[in-house]
Amino acid sequence: MESAPLYRKLASHYQRAIEVGTLVPGDRMPSVRTLMELHSVSLSTALQACRRMEAEGWLEARPRAGYFVRQPASARSRAALIEEPPAALPDPAQYVGIHARISAIVATGRHPVEVNLAAACGAPELYPTEPLRHAATRALRQHPALFGCPAEPGGHAAFRAVLARHALLSRIAVAPEEILVTHGCTEALNLALRAVAVPGDVIAVESPTYYGLLQILESLGMRALEIPTSPHTGISLEALELAAQTYDNIRAVVVVPNLQNPQGSIMPDEHKARLVQWCEATGVALIEDDCFSALSDDDTPLAAAKSWDRSGNVIHCASLHKIMAPGMRLGWMTAGKWQARVEMLKFSQSRPNEVLTQMTAAEFMASGEFERHLRRLRVRLRHQREWTAETIAAGFPAGTRLSAPRGGVHLWVELPGGIPSEAVFDRALEAGVRVLPGVVFSNSNRFDHCLRINTGIPRSRTLEQGFARLAEVVRRLAG
Amino acid sequence: MESAPLYRKLASHYQRAIEVGTLVPGDRMPSVRTLMELHSVSLSTALQACRRMEAEGWLEARPRAGYFVRQPASARSRAALIEEPPAALPDPAQYVGIHARISAIVATGRHPVEVNLAAACGAPELYPTEPLRHAATRALRQHPALFGCPAEPGGHAAFRAVLARHALLSRIAVAPEEILVTHGCTEALNLALRAVAVPGDVIAVESPTYYGLLQILESLGMRALEIPTSPHTGISLEALELAAQTYDNIRAVVVVPNLQNPQGSIMPDEHKARLVQWCEATGVALIEDDCFSALSDDDTPLAAAKSWDRSGNVIHCASLHKIMAPGMRLGWMTAGKWQARVEMLKFSQSRPNEVLTQMTAAEFMASGEFERHLRRLRVRLRHQREWTAETIAAGFPAGTRLSAPRGGVHLWVELPGGIPSEAVFDRALEAGVRVLPGVVFSNSNRFDHCLRINTGIPRSRTLEQGFARLAEVVRRLAG
Repeated sequence: MESAPLYRKLASHYQRAIEVGTLVPGDRMPSVRTLMELHSVSLSTALQACRRMEAEGWLEARPRAGYFVRQPASARSRAALIEEPPAALPDPAQYVGIHARISAIVATGRHPVEVNLAAACGAPELYPTEPLRHAATRALRQHPALFGCPAEPGGHAAFRAVLARHALLSRIAVAPEEILVTHGCTEALNLALRAVAVPGDVIAVESPTYYGLLQILESLGMRALEIPTSPHTGISLEALELAAQTYDNIRAVVVVPNLQNPQGSIMPDEHKARLVQWCEATGVALIEDDCFSALSDDDTPLAAAKSWDRSGNVIHCASLHKIMAPGMRLGWMTAGKWQARVEMLKFSQSRPNEVLTQMTAAEFMASGEFERHLRRLRVRLRHQREWTAETIAAGFPAGTRLSAPRGGVHLWVELPGGIPSEAVFDRALEAGVRVLPGVVFSNSNRFDHCLRINTGIPRSRTLEQGFARLAEVVRRLAG
Repeated sequence: MESAPLYRKLASHYQRAIEVGTLVPGDRMPSVRTLMELHSVSLSTALQACRRMEAEGWLEARPRAGYFVRQPASARSRAALIEEPPAALPDPAQYVGIHARISAIVATGRHPVEVNLAAACGAPELYPTEPLRHAATRALRQHPALFGCPAEPGGHAAFRAVLARHALLSRIAVAPEEILVTHGCTEALNLALRAVAVPGDVIAVESPTYYGLLQILESLGMRALEIPTSPHTGISLEALELAAQTYDNIRAVVVVPNLQNPQGSIMPDEHKARLVQWCEATGVALIEDDCFSALSDDDTPLAAAKSWDRSGNVIHCASLHKIMAPGMRLGWMTAGKWQARVEMLKFSQSRPNEVLTQMTAAEFMASGEFERHLRRLRVRLRHQREWTAETIAAGFPAGTRLSAPRGGVHLWVELPGGIPSEAVFDRALEAGVRVLPGVVFSNSNRFDHCLRINTGIPRSRTLEQGFARLAEVVRRLAG
């Protein structure tokens, strides 16, 4: 922390350079070495300055090429960015008790609204529905007796083979037989937790975290220990280590290292490696939820924490829901030393997945079309996210803060002046707009003034009106 | 029991009449009133004689028409029928510990064998795969964006509507919204148990019972209390009541009232009614697994225990796996007073089922083809079952006993002289034949000399050879 003022000064210097147009979008930022020489600062200070500018959306990192000036989002100059959480002891909200609250909020999803900003995936038109339905039709023609044949244990062979190849992009080397196909990532997380822990065990989770995880933990009788999580670098390893000294019954850690839900953070690779090593050394299972990484703005794939696993202590869970087909319930998991146990639990819980969608997905993913789809999807999602950030910045009251994720399908919004998100949720729903209030992302009340906003919907007159009504609701509550 | 010798004498009398051809298949049996007059016996004795002959396969009951002489199965005169279990206290095998054993046996299913007699459903050619794939292809054409749209919470509306109409046949009146679609009956049973009980609770089950249920209970940390179960009338209500006096923490009873797995028994309607009332009066939840009832030999639908439920204390679970499409993982449940809880658990465990197969199933079930398919299937399964029984009777050693189910897709075989079914399983597998050994159907060792044999495979040269090899294995082990 000793260089904090210095790296901030350095960052401000270059921000001004961008604001006044000395550096323009696409320009290469001076290299770290150049910064060190120009400003007589340490490597650490130069790096911290660049990372801060990157986190704040001024720069973007391109692998092996350095930092570049980003397209300016007017949002960024109007709505401030979310700050780091204070370095504190973990929240003692061990006993999950928000099921009823989550359930009530989730249940409103049964009723259609005009503008649904509560989802965490793209609109149907963003997905390759045409090639997928052709692939499904072909599968039905080529396998006429498909509906008469029991499903393959563990998953359809061709699908598991494609998933094993896909995993290589995240630097995971896995055999097809080590992949278990599940009903979405949700079932994979259930099985992972049931494999490593029993009711009463403590599970360390990010804070804020995915509400679905809190629901799973409560329904399994496990206790969530919330660990402060940075909107930029993900779970705080210091806080986790501190927590392990305080609570001796932490059985597992569940993290979303890439494009965290809801904050959108990406753990630096060195954090991932450290986390994997720490978990192994302390005998705590690491469960990785990796549903968003293919939606990174950057075409260079993000590494999974699992790729540092040498002892089988990491359970990697993923799905196609957000990246390829919201209408398919296809997830999968690689469970290392717990593989036999998750296979048994899956068989006992729901039997193998049916084959048709696996066949369909396998054909599409094996073709070059999958990669082309992902590249198009990343660009569209980035544009939609930037437009959404600008729209929120323009319409929400002063003091609103925004996350600046480098990918994914949502933004995390901190409302000013303690505006309660449940009130926003209720009034927005009356106005035909569904958002997800911060209360569902924690058992504490620390995020009660936050909202998660879906950025997966293409811009339209309806969407614009929806945001206008939402901004109106927030402004009124702001007084 | 006072009339035992008398009703047996009466039954023997008419069995001889059938054996010598006085009465031929299709003949109406003298009515109960006639029997009373002819033989000067009580109503109870006459009825018991008819029921015994029915249970032994000599007669069949046709609703509102009386008893008729059945097609003779030579099996029945060669292999004796399985006897009633002794009226005893429930087995104290409370602590389930057979997971590893079941898992090891189930895992062998990953390797294809020449003849698989271990399944509990029909061969692919018994199912309407052609109309189903056409329905699926139409659904894909009519809903081109299907794979891009998240699934409907609770299940696809049209499918739930069809299921509600289908339930009427089992005399269950339920609204479509009260039906939750699940990944097969297996997931429904998991959700039902999780809704009503917590780890450590005792669950009363039939003995022998479906191995999948024992697996679920162990994986959920619940304890199975095995209740003696008759091959003719299902779970013993007397033994259940006795058990409740001994164990005060029975949280639920799980039964298959119609065509029990593995014995094939059908609970008389008055037993179903009594069980429902007893559960309600004692505050024990009743979970009904109803996957086989559409496979009754009789076209008259069997009533579900749920149809006697007046307080929402019965959770009814079913699936299409055995009756329409082994390749679809479509189950459903109606959970009475636990409906909101199972909906929440389903959402938390695996999210809603994807829509394509639900749409496909809905279209087929709404057409008249579904009922025509079921009628054809019942006839084919009956013929296959009778052929299988004859084949076993002819090839297995003397002293072998067989169940005589009035429907379904399996036979329960008791081997003579304590032949261990695990040895049969191992050696048959080496010979390319897979059976299910009795050990997996109980935590006790009471059924170690039993086998469950699938009767869903149409007769062929390969099947005949498989049975010949199986009989050879059993004969060698017999001495």
